[in-house]
Amino acid sequence: MGTDILNYMVNHNKNQLNEIFHALADPTRREIIHMMAQKERTVSELAEPFDMSLAAISKHIKVLERANLVERNITGRTHICSINAESLSRASEWLRFYEKFWSNRFDILESELLKAKNREH
Amino acid sequence: MGTDILNYMVNHNKNQLNEIFHALADPTRREIIHMMAQKERTVSELAEPFDMSLAAISKHIKVLERANLVERNITGRTHICSINAESLSRASEWLRFYEKFWSNRFDILESELLKAKNREH
Repeated sequence: MGTDILNYMVNHNKNQLNEIFHALADPTRREIIHMMAQKERTVSELAEPFDMSLAAISKHIKVLERANLVERNITGRTHICSINAESLSRASEWLRFYEKFWSNRFDILESELLKAKNREH
Repeated sequence: MGTDILNYMVNHNKNQLNEIFHALADPTRREIIHMMAQKERTVSELAEPFDMSLAAISKHIKVLERANLVERNITGRTHICSINAESLSRASEWLRFYEKFWSNRFDILESELLKAKNREH
């Protein structure tokens, strides 16, 4: 039924946002995203800057994969990780809905500054 | 010293992003943000749509407060909660850095669609 599909989609979307925001809540994972944004990297390249075991880094990559933030291409024994921007854009979309709140704040600040400036003259 | 202050600021910013993304990783907390975005609300108003105890909702609000996503004004016994957009804008800023990845994707998609359209004629 139509509403069942709609409910499924709403719930699926909610769960995905949970996974995405959870994945972003860790500085190591954000740094991994940053590294993949520069170029695609092997798992060992991603592990290099961190004072962590390869197993610990692999766990972080798995959290990113669950959130669909990483695409992993396996050629032979090499796993190449690249960024999946679609999930980032979903999180960004969610936040953008609230943009008016902070842009309003900037508008208020700007008009206050203008008023202050005009008083100076 | 300069570098100490800089390190402190970088770490403070990292920790804040951890708290913000962690707070957003829960559908109840995102719904509370959505309700506060419509208008400021008392804690009991925020609790109303959920099948949860007031204590459970209070915990969620505390997580939002730790992430600086809520401003609480106490008048007598009434706690009025309103949205703090600054933290949302921080998370949005972080994501916006990666915007080129998904806007590139849309550009590619658009040019593919245009090519396909031209082939039709």
